Amino acid sequence: MTGPRYPELIAKLPSSVPFVGPEVQERQRGAPFLARLGANESVFGPSPFAVAAMQDTAGQCWQYADATNYDLIHAISAHMRVRPDNIIIGEGIDALLGYLVRLLVAPGDPVVTSDGAYPTFNYHVVGYGGTLHKVPFKNDHEDIDALMAKAAEVDAKIVYLSNPDNPMGSWHSGAKIEKALEALPDGTLLLLDEAYIEFAPSGTAPDIDANDPRIIRMRTFSKAYGMAGARVGYGIGAPDLIKSFDKVRNHFGMSRISQAGALAAYEDTAWLDEVIELAANARDRIGTIAKANGLTPLPSATNFVTVDCGADGAFAKAVLAGLIQEGVFVRMPFVSPGDRCIRISAGRPSDLDIFGAALPKALATARG
Amino acid sequence: MTGPRYPELIAKLPSSVPFVGPEVQERQRGAPFLARLGANESVFGPSPFAVAAMQDTAGQCWQYADATNYDLIHAISAHMRVRPDNIIIGEGIDALLGYLVRLLVAPGDPVVTSDGAYPTFNYHVVGYGGTLHKVPFKNDHEDIDALMAKAAEVDAKIVYLSNPDNPMGSWHSGAKIEKALEALPDGTLLLLDEAYIEFAPSGTAPDIDANDPRIIRMRTFSKAYGMAGARVGYGIGAPDLIKSFDKVRNHFGMSRISQAGALAAYEDTAWLDEVIELAANARDRIGTIAKANGLTPLPSATNFVTVDCGADGAFAKAVLAGLIQEGVFVRMPFVSPGDRCIRISAGRPSDLDIFGAALPKALATARG
Repeated sequence: MTGPRYPELIAKLPSSVPFVGPEVQERQRGAPFLARLGANESVFGPSPFAVAAMQDTAGQCWQYADATNYDLIHAISAHMRVRPDNIIIGEGIDALLGYLVRLLVAPGDPVVTSDGAYPTFNYHVVGYGGTLHKVPFKNDHEDIDALMAKAAEVDAKIVYLSNPDNPMGSWHSGAKIEKALEALPDGTLLLLDEAYIEFAPSGTAPDIDANDPRIIRMRTFSKAYGMAGARVGYGIGAPDLIKSFDKVRNHFGMSRISQAGALAAYEDTAWLDEVIELAANARDRIGTIAKANGLTPLPSATNFVTVDCGADGAFAKAVLAGLIQEGVFVRMPFVSPGDRCIRISAGRPSDLDIFGAALPKALATARG
Repeated sequence: MTGPRYPELIAKLPSSVPFVGPEVQERQRGAPFLARLGANESVFGPSPFAVAAMQDTAGQCWQYADATNYDLIHAISAHMRVRPDNIIIGEGIDALLGYLVRLLVAPGDPVVTSDGAYPTFNYHVVGYGGTLHKVPFKNDHEDIDALMAKAAEVDAKIVYLSNPDNPMGSWHSGAKIEKALEALPDGTLLLLDEAYIEFAPSGTAPDIDANDPRIIRMRTFSKAYGMAGARVGYGIGAPDLIKSFDKVRNHFGMSRISQAGALAAYEDTAWLDEVIELAANARDRIGTIAKANGLTPLPSATNFVTVDCGADGAFAKAVLAGLIQEGVFVRMPFVSPGDRCIRISAGRPSDLDIFGAALPKALATARG
């Protein structure tokens, strides 16, 4: 009586989790967090219209969702002035990243990203047997020139770039991204992750033809739209690539409730504007708290602030542990030298009061 | 300026959709369906407690879901008397099928199923480059002996069996499934799809140790629990296999709203019992309507009735077209000789009134 037989690629994969969620930590510590500022969720919540739409749809969830995502695609199409066949909707950017990697990366195929960039993308690349080539951040920014050079050197299938980037919160101008396309090797797809683009200054999004076959852009309802737990992301790209998602995607994988919520959220631009302002205020407040405690907030075009703790990774880790001890859920998803930092998501004033009270204690403990 | 480069396996895949959804057909016909009886959705809806739980959670969907699905896993664990590490939760059975195929099927690996069984499973097998071997239905039942014999012949990685089965609605006793395990070849995993098990007579579910490494069972909140559009399914299997899903799954892929709804639905056994009774009444009514029109309803242990139209596939197709013309969404996902049938989902009395009025017209048109 034997068990199933795994292919070699699968047998070698670790049973890993890219992130440990706050609920797991809460069960371990035996108490809920007092402030949830670790996953760049939008604590300001979704648009009230989105909440109402989801509540109205709850009783209708006996129906499978529209597998073509027609309504949401057409709303995005009208707003972004791209054609419906330039748009793919998926169960969050995470699912779309998985589909994209599956579409392009065969075992051994090279993929380029920054060392310390989004772990879930790396998880998918490794999961499909791709070979990751990592380029260091430069002055706390993703190094576009080095990414393109590495892509050319290894003949990459995909080069990943997030703008604004997570976890540093830094950003490049749209013009610089446009220029990077000139250096993109033939046959390499630029995967531009714009999960935080709504928070960024005007001019951060590049002006690129949606039909350009060299690039796919990904955006999400998880951040500025406050719907991380509803799982809605989208990609913008050339019709051939977009259509190819139909080869691998889970066609009926979308929640009908989430579809309705995302549509209402997308149309409520006033709420989006308000969240962007609330996040900007929160960034300022986090910066003020950090400076008052002798730490250095890094500039951010996102809904979080990366705070330089001014010493090495061990020290930042101790500060993080102290914050968690005080009931503040934060993370430090960094590699050296970024690991001198901790990352604080934009919170409500009440959340940041808790953070502000916890930080001096955490620092005192970390400094022994 | 070239586009991305697809691996050979992907380049050869069709951009296909396993099912065309009713919304697509509604847009094509320019009018909504009057009765939605084609996808075996539970038109009776989810438990009112599940609806309330989802409504209460809508405003909290700014939080990612608990990636470990702790609460739902522990509820299922307690109810089914299996350990938490015997359970995997996923974004519907469709997603779990995709993960399972990815875990076990390398290009060229053989997989066995019945000819005419669940197309989405086949979609995943083909998508990962597996080789499908299909066994005919026997007397409108999945042919367990032939499935096991074929699995042995081709040295299958997986053999798929649904019980009760879709699309015929037929079923085998749990004792027969238990006995089938004796004939299962070494190294072949039995994938037992129990999506409709709640509707089946007592004794249809086999009594199998959840730690048996030879089998994985899949169940869903899409059918009896009325939450198809919320995307929650689960698998029961040996801990090694269950843990391996962490190698490939979208850890944060669950909707937080759906998690809350599924938990409340699972605990509302009174609603489940009511739905099972409503579905039984609907099956009787569909049978009565079919017989009154000279057609033969097949026995069913599900929330649908497969109706033998008494002639060939072309005739059944004409009947189906007539029903759709009359505003009744139904399907005939069959291969010969099953394609003499159409499939009607259990509806409310008002839905079946519409079906009952439409069927004579559809038959008259089909008979020319």
